[in-house]
Amino acid sequence: MPTTLNWQFAARTRHMKRSTIREILKLTQLPDVISFAGGLPAPATFPVERMRAIGQKLDAADMQYSPTEGLPALRDFIAERLSTAHLKVTRDNVLIVSGSQQALDLLGRVLIDDGARVVVENPTYLGMLMAWKPYGLDYLPVPTDDDGMQVAQLPPLLDQAPRLIYAVPNFQNPQGTTLPLDRRCELIRLIHAYGIPLIEDNAYGELRYSGEDIPSLLSLDAEARGNTDVDGGQVIYVGTFSKILAPGLRVGWIAAPEPVIEKAIQAKQSADLHTSTLNQVMAQALTEDDFLTGHVATIRDLYRVRRDVMLEAMRRYFPPQVTWTTPDGGLFLMARCPESIDTTDLLAKAVEQKVAFIPGADFHIGGVGRNTMRLNFSNAEPERITEGIRRLGALLAAELGC
Amino acid sequence: MPTTLNWQFAARTRHMKRSTIREILKLTQLPDVISFAGGLPAPATFPVERMRAIGQKLDAADMQYSPTEGLPALRDFIAERLSTAHLKVTRDNVLIVSGSQQALDLLGRVLIDDGARVVVENPTYLGMLMAWKPYGLDYLPVPTDDDGMQVAQLPPLLDQAPRLIYAVPNFQNPQGTTLPLDRRCELIRLIHAYGIPLIEDNAYGELRYSGEDIPSLLSLDAEARGNTDVDGGQVIYVGTFSKILAPGLRVGWIAAPEPVIEKAIQAKQSADLHTSTLNQVMAQALTEDDFLTGHVATIRDLYRVRRDVMLEAMRRYFPPQVTWTTPDGGLFLMARCPESIDTTDLLAKAVEQKVAFIPGADFHIGGVGRNTMRLNFSNAEPERITEGIRRLGALLAAELGC
Repeated sequence: MPTTLNWQFAARTRHMKRSTIREILKLTQLPDVISFAGGLPAPATFPVERMRAIGQKLDAADMQYSPTEGLPALRDFIAERLSTAHLKVTRDNVLIVSGSQQALDLLGRVLIDDGARVVVENPTYLGMLMAWKPYGLDYLPVPTDDDGMQVAQLPPLLDQAPRLIYAVPNFQNPQGTTLPLDRRCELIRLIHAYGIPLIEDNAYGELRYSGEDIPSLLSLDAEARGNTDVDGGQVIYVGTFSKILAPGLRVGWIAAPEPVIEKAIQAKQSADLHTSTLNQVMAQALTEDDFLTGHVATIRDLYRVRRDVMLEAMRRYFPPQVTWTTPDGGLFLMARCPESIDTTDLLAKAVEQKVAFIPGADFHIGGVGRNTMRLNFSNAEPERITEGIRRLGALLAAELGC
Repeated sequence: MPTTLNWQFAARTRHMKRSTIREILKLTQLPDVISFAGGLPAPATFPVERMRAIGQKLDAADMQYSPTEGLPALRDFIAERLSTAHLKVTRDNVLIVSGSQQALDLLGRVLIDDGARVVVENPTYLGMLMAWKPYGLDYLPVPTDDDGMQVAQLPPLLDQAPRLIYAVPNFQNPQGTTLPLDRRCELIRLIHAYGIPLIEDNAYGELRYSGEDIPSLLSLDAEARGNTDVDGGQVIYVGTFSKILAPGLRVGWIAAPEPVIEKAIQAKQSADLHTSTLNQVMAQALTEDDFLTGHVATIRDLYRVRRDVMLEAMRRYFPPQVTWTTPDGGLFLMARCPESIDTTDLLAKAVEQKVAFIPGADFHIGGVGRNTMRLNFSNAEPERITEGIRRLGALLAAELGC
């Protein structure tokens, strides 16, 4: 009998590990835990009745292979939705992908060489860090404040010729912050001046609960160029139906200049041939008759209440030494504890109290942020939010001896 | 106004190109072309009524995020279906993926370093060549005959310490050949003796129209070891619902020893978080009550007729200098023309005659096979198969001056 094989894995897997997100998605499945950990949309927002009605009318064409680029009608819908007075997005600028996580994976494959420099907000999105781990990147972190990326601090980083900038301008994950218009305009000016591409990850942009919508970087890029074509621009836009329809569909998109779309199509074809025909048909049918307008308004109303309940509970139960961001939208806010608290240690105690969050350390570059925690407010019922924050507050008070 | 950015792509994209498959999937969409080019299942085989019935009962949980590994019930179903008297596959040996193309992508990421040696049948599966293109592999081709891989010719290749062997033992794409039991046993003996892993791609294994089923390499590996555990083995098995339910679902699986599954889960999480919950629920519900037994029998009956019609038409219309394989199952056969014919040139003339196939060159390693063509028999109606083969035969006769 042969001895058991000693499996040899590719060198690029050295950087891989099971992520915090993944392990915590498991925690959130225990029904007695009040979880602020995941980024789960509230199932009550899923258009179940409409899905069932579409499900009844499926036909064989919806179950066949389909083109790598995505279904033409869905690409057209996305193109139209992204277009503005300053920007004309065409079908050829749009690639349908299997959720925005796949957008990040494909863009990493085609745009980033091993060890490249990449500018990111600090903290930044964990799913991007995970997707690009195999490349062993040299991240150049930009400091953030309550208005997101401190764009004024970018030039010395851009002097180091990074490969690209990755940004989440709306209701950022993990901080919930939003980049104001003046910073957006300056950011576009800088990427034009330095000739550096930018990935705009806008997974949460439609979920605004207060304040006014701000134009996308994709649109501002066109406006600054005085040309409505996407193709002359430098912004690669990533979007998803996960937060406005349902994440289980795994339908997202990349909108970008055609040379980028062409390369991404090649990578997508190798990765999974195409995104599920069935899910694209579902997404397309779900959006018909301007469904999203009313539906997104309903989601906003639901999450606005939950955000407000969480903020109110934090004011009531958190010790005065703890501060937090006040998001105008999205799914998350970030709390900052005194430096004496390590939130990774705190999580173990919190789970004993049946409440969960994500420790902030993994979102940060450079070993900072160990005193921060990301809190999700979209997935728990208001009473559970209040109770969970009460438990966390008691735990923090005990830790801080107050 | 800034000048247009000169996009810089990652070095690994040098090897990428739009594939023949992809461009040909477009050809097949023209209704007046009789296409033997794609690998499309017949839409008549899709369980549309059953899908609609399931669609009516979807609930919110079917639209939520779900674990990277796949839904437990579906993993259990696959584990049970793969288990034999000699082999006990467990849930932990199974990873659900977004079609078997993603299985190949993930396995490449975790198992193959850039420039590694990989043993493949010659010709081999185009989707694998495409998925692994970024790694610039050094392929070691094994010659094939009407019984598939000539296993007796493996030892000098295994002496070169390849990273793995990739094989399609059942109804191979592109040749339609099947590896006999004696060759399978010898192949297992060799991978044990040399300590080399093997990927068994079994996308077509359930579609047998004649002859007896032969045990999988996964099962023979366990039998040879005298141990029913997958974990001590060296075979990584890839399967899919694309040919027995519907390709538009994009649901496939990897069954392998746990160390491989663990790494593949990490890669899968980065790639797309998880396979669509909706599609997994659909696949799981479609298979309930032993549905596949009767359904697969129906598909076999349909495709057996089409295979026989194509073989009969070839005997009738193809010039005597052209030979072909006679598959016991699957979707494809391969025709071999005299060396004077380049099938890539022939395709242009064939499309003028409204008939299409895939030139064999792209499936081959080492510049051979320019005189071969892959013909799909699953997707066209019998009368169209006869008419398409008649047209191709006339074209071949004209080329050969007979």
